[in-house]
Amino acid sequence: MPINPDAVGAKGDPVRRKWSSKDALLYALGVGAGTEELPFTTENTRDVKQRVLPTFAVIIGGGGAPMNKVGSFNPALMVHGEQSIELFDEIPPEGEIESVGEVTAIWDKGNAAVLEFTSESTNVANGKPLLRNRMTLFCRGEGGFGGERGPSIKLDYPDRKPDHEVTYTTREDQALLYRLSGDRNPLHSDPSFAKMGGFDRPILHGLCTYGFTGRALLHTLCDSDPSRFKSMSGRFSKPVLPGDALTVSMWVDGNECLFQTRTQRGDVVLDQGRMTFQ
Amino acid sequence: MPINPDAVGAKGDPVRRKWSSKDALLYALGVGAGTEELPFTTENTRDVKQRVLPTFAVIIGGGGAPMNKVGSFNPALMVHGEQSIELFDEIPPEGEIESVGEVTAIWDKGNAAVLEFTSESTNVANGKPLLRNRMTLFCRGEGGFGGERGPSIKLDYPDRKPDHEVTYTTREDQALLYRLSGDRNPLHSDPSFAKMGGFDRPILHGLCTYGFTGRALLHTLCDSDPSRFKSMSGRFSKPVLPGDALTVSMWVDGNECLFQTRTQRGDVVLDQGRMTFQ
Repeated sequence: MPINPDAVGAKGDPVRRKWSSKDALLYALGVGAGTEELPFTTENTRDVKQRVLPTFAVIIGGGGAPMNKVGSFNPALMVHGEQSIELFDEIPPEGEIESVGEVTAIWDKGNAAVLEFTSESTNVANGKPLLRNRMTLFCRGEGGFGGERGPSIKLDYPDRKPDHEVTYTTREDQALLYRLSGDRNPLHSDPSFAKMGGFDRPILHGLCTYGFTGRALLHTLCDSDPSRFKSMSGRFSKPVLPGDALTVSMWVDGNECLFQTRTQRGDVVLDQGRMTFQ
Repeated sequence: MPINPDAVGAKGDPVRRKWSSKDALLYALGVGAGTEELPFTTENTRDVKQRVLPTFAVIIGGGGAPMNKVGSFNPALMVHGEQSIELFDEIPPEGEIESVGEVTAIWDKGNAAVLEFTSESTNVANGKPLLRNRMTLFCRGEGGFGGERGPSIKLDYPDRKPDHEVTYTTREDQALLYRLSGDRNPLHSDPSFAKMGGFDRPILHGLCTYGFTGRALLHTLCDSDPSRFKSMSGRFSKPVLPGDALTVSMWVDGNECLFQTRTQRGDVVLDQGRMTFQ
């Protein structure tokens, strides 16, 4: 069965997920936070309250999409396209979330299908909306089913030098740590599996790059206060290798920031980035 | 109530502890294993079976000592003195252990008391002995209760250059990762707490140094095969700062190895080291 464009609008059953303070600490370390970010990497430092990185939203949320409705595609030819998060409240250090996922778009790019899923997550403790995830999967070889091409939106980056630039260096074993937050795809750890996928060696999780980028945005634009971080979206445009340095360039306009993340090779790896803050 | 020397021989109730594959992976990363040690840092690499570092014994074992019998001491003046492990079988990637702890010695060093605890751990799955932990606590200010001084054993290091030397560099945030394996003492993470303890900044867990050292011994002497690693003991002699390089010097005689671990400053941090292997 190929991609089924009629799946748009289909919702999944609510799914619940708990997380612990340790999960949040492990995630923060996995996206490179360290001794300079003790609110995110420790829970018992004197006069420091544990906080949670906003991009932890992708770990606890995003579930519940009715994957069985969208038809079939070859997972080996599928890549994560875009990822957006919206925060309606600060994520607590531990808690439980209930998420409802929906197929919100299916586009036919000719040589590929693009599937978009949106997931709304509620904080079980108080019943209030906590966050929203939206992500697209880019499925090579699955286009041509006669669907619409969909919009092609390109951000206009300002014609000036970035207002801020932050560089973080990932580690050789970054993916080994990041994967303990949940995504055990061996593409990120097994050299032989990565070779089958056409890579010289295991590549970093796109969402790990996303987390490094979110840290740069949080510390630069929100004074490290997660409650001021409102949304972030971007498109994965090239693979990152563990050990790469990631430079996040930011152009700020009021409470909005456009950003791009590049490696030391000059490759743009997270493109079309937009973030809002208070 | 001061130290109670009559506590020697007292046993605690059996305590059980489960561990998961993820616990073992997290520990391995916490003591510096990385992309060159995929059997210890991944569970799904093709043709690679997950193995467990022998020093994980200190995480899952060592419990069950009747601490309420030994009298009281000031924990702020207490340091971990010696640690020994014996492995009777290879530690599986996940499982459950039952441990019985015993007060096996209390010595009066004049200015300090030394408490020794021994814990025998059985693999619940098959009822067989799995490992033994022995550790001493050095309690400053608690000596002078009229007890025996105890033996003073010093290893005779051979009068030749080490047969092997291995250097691993710890990271600035090493303790932040290691602590997720269980020991959340803020001495290793909170700068203000460390200052109260008389340190310029947080120091590394002694057992993290122990784990780095165990990796060096395992890879150098056991061809990275945990089933060949039989025992390891050593004395914590100076603090390690996260970021320090650790050089393990080994003198081998048959199936026995004497070792010492030094920092780049030349400080011996793990002394009186003895390890046996097959």
